[in-house]
Amino acid sequence: MTSDPVRLGVAGLGRAFMLMVPSFDADTRVKLTAAAAPREESRDAFEKEYGGTGYATVEELCADPDVEAIYIATPHQMHVDHVLAAARAGKHILVEKPLAVSMEDAEVMVSAAKEAGVHLIVGPSHSFDPPVELATQLISSGKFGQLRMIQAFNYTDFLYRPRRPEELRTEEGGGVLFSQAIHQIDVVRRLAGGMAEKIYAMTGAWDPKRPTEGAFTALMNFAGGCVANMTYSGYAHFDSDIWMNNVGELGQRKSEGAYGGARRALLDLNPDDEVRLKTTRTFGSGTTIEAEHNEHFGPVIALCDRADLRLTPDGIEVFGDTERGFIEAKFGPAPRRTVLDALVDAVRHNKAPDQTGEWGLASLEVCHAILQSAETGQAVDLQRQCKTNH
Amino acid sequence: MTSDPVRLGVAGLGRAFMLMVPSFDADTRVKLTAAAAPREESRDAFEKEYGGTGYATVEELCADPDVEAIYIATPHQMHVDHVLAAARAGKHILVEKPLAVSMEDAEVMVSAAKEAGVHLIVGPSHSFDPPVELATQLISSGKFGQLRMIQAFNYTDFLYRPRRPEELRTEEGGGVLFSQAIHQIDVVRRLAGGMAEKIYAMTGAWDPKRPTEGAFTALMNFAGGCVANMTYSGYAHFDSDIWMNNVGELGQRKSEGAYGGARRALLDLNPDDEVRLKTTRTFGSGTTIEAEHNEHFGPVIALCDRADLRLTPDGIEVFGDTERGFIEAKFGPAPRRTVLDALVDAVRHNKAPDQTGEWGLASLEVCHAILQSAETGQAVDLQRQCKTNH
Repeated sequence: MTSDPVRLGVAGLGRAFMLMVPSFDADTRVKLTAAAAPREESRDAFEKEYGGTGYATVEELCADPDVEAIYIATPHQMHVDHVLAAARAGKHILVEKPLAVSMEDAEVMVSAAKEAGVHLIVGPSHSFDPPVELATQLISSGKFGQLRMIQAFNYTDFLYRPRRPEELRTEEGGGVLFSQAIHQIDVVRRLAGGMAEKIYAMTGAWDPKRPTEGAFTALMNFAGGCVANMTYSGYAHFDSDIWMNNVGELGQRKSEGAYGGARRALLDLNPDDEVRLKTTRTFGSGTTIEAEHNEHFGPVIALCDRADLRLTPDGIEVFGDTERGFIEAKFGPAPRRTVLDALVDAVRHNKAPDQTGEWGLASLEVCHAILQSAETGQAVDLQRQCKTNH
Repeated sequence: MTSDPVRLGVAGLGRAFMLMVPSFDADTRVKLTAAAAPREESRDAFEKEYGGTGYATVEELCADPDVEAIYIATPHQMHVDHVLAAARAGKHILVEKPLAVSMEDAEVMVSAAKEAGVHLIVGPSHSFDPPVELATQLISSGKFGQLRMIQAFNYTDFLYRPRRPEELRTEEGGGVLFSQAIHQIDVVRRLAGGMAEKIYAMTGAWDPKRPTEGAFTALMNFAGGCVANMTYSGYAHFDSDIWMNNVGELGQRKSEGAYGGARRALLDLNPDDEVRLKTTRTFGSGTTIEAEHNEHFGPVIALCDRADLRLTPDGIEVFGDTERGFIEAKFGPAPRRTVLDALVDAVRHNKAPDQTGEWGLASLEVCHAILQSAETGQAVDLQRQCKTNH
């Protein structure tokens, strides 16, 4: 046990928190000391598991003097209120991606954290995945020459997982842009150093029963000349995990028998049933996933002058001019160890990660630019980008 | 033996012809009756193998009254003169892709064929591959709903294969645009019905020793709303054939041991040596490849409303809403049977394929638009597109 663990309060005990549980449980550097959740079952389950205090509101959680930092895992549109409350209370903040839905909210949050002198970290996102971190180091070392192009794509069943109604309304942060593109943007920006300049994109809202963007494709160029090709479909047919060694997004081995499961589970379900199904994925109800590999967000190839790097769940395949090799990216002990590294570094050592509030705002700008480019048919210049720290 | 085979004259006995040899040899509907080539060894080898006449010039070949149709497999920049010669002589024409390098040449060729009343077919290109043909039929049948997006990419060693100097000069049709993008454009246009509207693209010329475009990435949208994402790198690191069942472009099984072979073979080679190495790949010198599967041009995923189609060298994987399946695309007996189908249908039954001169001109327009978009940073409207025939 670490002698002085970071005392973390959790705002929101839903799906996002559930996905962090295995990492919190496996890492003694962070101690969950309190939580806030509207559902009593969730609060009870938290207290039973972690022995801390369960509050009904985030404001009460922020007032807890025993809490040093707050992990905000509430729905997207609530992030702004909760980040402001935490900043006002002088707590460091780890907020789920996307930082916010609107750029205005994001700007307010970044300013509030700055004024309060607290760290604001946006994560977890897949830019924290150890293979992404390793590839970022390899690229920025310059040993493979200049980074020229990144191709990233991901084909998932995102749109057919159980959703609350607002998760299918774009203006409230629903659809694949704010929940999924944000991962790909974060990954690609991290590999390329952060400073995106311009983006051209098209989006697809192809299912009238779930009328929000379920797919997009985009070309984005960076200062220095690198171009990124990003594609995503959440319409649940082809599954690109077959090209990630049959390992799923959360590092779990995927079984063949599950084909079409998400869509099948939704057939003949009315919206109330669907919301109920979603709550079975919250703390105290759902089960956690057993990861055996690093998490990932679909195939990523980074082309440098003297090598192409292929990210896998276990590391980086390096395809050089005349030889190929593999560099392992260590898994565990906590599946999301790198997110907790960032939290501990910020709270204990005053060291910010790449994924600060400014960073999250820059990635959010790209989400909006994708929507704008798709609507106007024109490339969109990016104005609020920032660099990685290294 | 077919009683009345198409009597074909071959203009150019280089690499392109070599790649057609197994198909000519396996198909009795076409008989090679004459050829033209500047190198005597090639002509002798042709006469020895096929018993026809070897001419030193294409003009003489076109004057041969026994020839019904000419297969033009000369370097890109010579296509225009040879197509015009064949048209003037009243011969039907199968011309290698790209139809031409300049749009002006392409327009002249299309007009000449029209005036002469001869068929002008542009091929082979990978749009003739049986899985592409099958996917085109499946999509246009409407059984999977609307086609929404196509993603096509290909990572090869194209730039490091032995080249003549002009093959590394863009203005003479060198680089990956005119030789490689043209395949991807042809494939994608065929799947989507042909009528591309607009394209936004970036290109990469990353190796100063071989100063032409070796990579590109592009988004192109079609009448009806489909968007295509196309990416190509010929810089020989990551090889996307690992995602095509380890089958190479020509339908051959690929061996692991060959990694980096193209680049290694070029190390310390001067330009003269390289040109000499290239001639070892012409008729009479080189060896042909044993195909066991259909040819392909890298991974292609076509997303429809009710299924995604993944093209493989053996057929189409159909990923439906709740079930997946596989539809075989028959291989052989001639590896490029579908190209000869088109030739025989045109010459014997006056039936044009999708890949007419107009079609080739439209695909060429896209190559130029990619270069223009990359240079200007703007999307380019396409003006000379045409539909598939079905």
